[in-house]
Amino acid sequence: MSTGRRVFVLRIGHRPVRDHRVTTHVGLVARAFGADGIFLEESVEESVIRTLRNVVENWGGDFKVLTTRDPRETVANWKKNGGIVVHLTMYGENISEELINLISGQGKDILVVVGGEKVPRWLFEEADFNVAIGNQPHSEVAALAVFLDRLFKGEELRREFPGAKLSIIPSKRGKIVVRRE
Amino acid sequence: MSTGRRVFVLRIGHRPVRDHRVTTHVGLVARAFGADGIFLEESVEESVIRTLRNVVENWGGDFKVLTTRDPRETVANWKKNGGIVVHLTMYGENISEELINLISGQGKDILVVVGGEKVPRWLFEEADFNVAIGNQPHSEVAALAVFLDRLFKGEELRREFPGAKLSIIPSKRGKIVVRRE
Repeated sequence: MSTGRRVFVLRIGHRPVRDHRVTTHVGLVARAFGADGIFLEESVEESVIRTLRNVVENWGGDFKVLTTRDPRETVANWKKNGGIVVHLTMYGENISEELINLISGQGKDILVVVGGEKVPRWLFEEADFNVAIGNQPHSEVAALAVFLDRLFKGEELRREFPGAKLSIIPSKRGKIVVRRE
Repeated sequence: MSTGRRVFVLRIGHRPVRDHRVTTHVGLVARAFGADGIFLEESVEESVIRTLRNVVENWGGDFKVLTTRDPRETVANWKKNGGIVVHLTMYGENISEELINLISGQGKDILVVVGGEKVPRWLFEEADFNVAIGNQPHSEVAALAVFLDRLFKGEELRREFPGAKLSIIPSKRGKIVVRRE
């Protein structure tokens, strides 16, 4: 978003083939819900990266798709540079307006880490906040979307994406796509 | 939720194998975010249904996992029984507090329909509301989560699931699971 603060997502624990579509959804949600970019592990398929970059190319904005060799180093560097790390996990403190204000009120860059079924122990220790979007099993895609929606207070969904070749005119019944060449 | 009003999800356009995990996530999100049940197409793998029912068995609540031979008939029957149909689509009217109040204020049962990449034309016509969770490409899992979170105003995440064998005690650092035999 345009606050000067950067929000990035780190997707960890990607299992090739099995997580192909879920990781793609995580990336699309990161972009659509106002994050500035995503770090993906090097094990991620080239096609996931290509899909995400194609969406940026067509639908606009400046969302960055980066890879990391070592997620733990990415977390350490983020903190070294003064940013805070929020790990979304069903085991964490439940999200609330107070918790969002505590996280957001610091005005620091935020790295939002989302895992899959198994998450390494170090992440619970090194995250500044372990946040649950409810304490029921569901989906990292959903957790990320709701966290960003709460963080940006719904404003992210009205954001413009500069340079878009494709955009939608909202409609009660139809599918109206505007294409700019 | 406990308002007397029923909220069900209908997942359409499931492609076997390819959508296996995404459809599972849609089902888990429906349950975790307070819906009363889900209709899945008959093409859905038995393992998706089994996973969802196992989660209900272990984590509690009364979430219904149903299948439908004909989603169009499910939509028609829902309306015949006085319910309203909300189709989540990136082409729709953007979600807003006014729109949520308009949908919720009717006090009727709500069927929330989520598709995948291709959605049949009739759904745009027969839905009472075509609602976009932002007009950018992202994920039906995310769209469903944010819609239900807005509909239930965040209260769904504090809900209790009666009869749970497993539950989590929220924690700042650890993983605390309570198991009842």
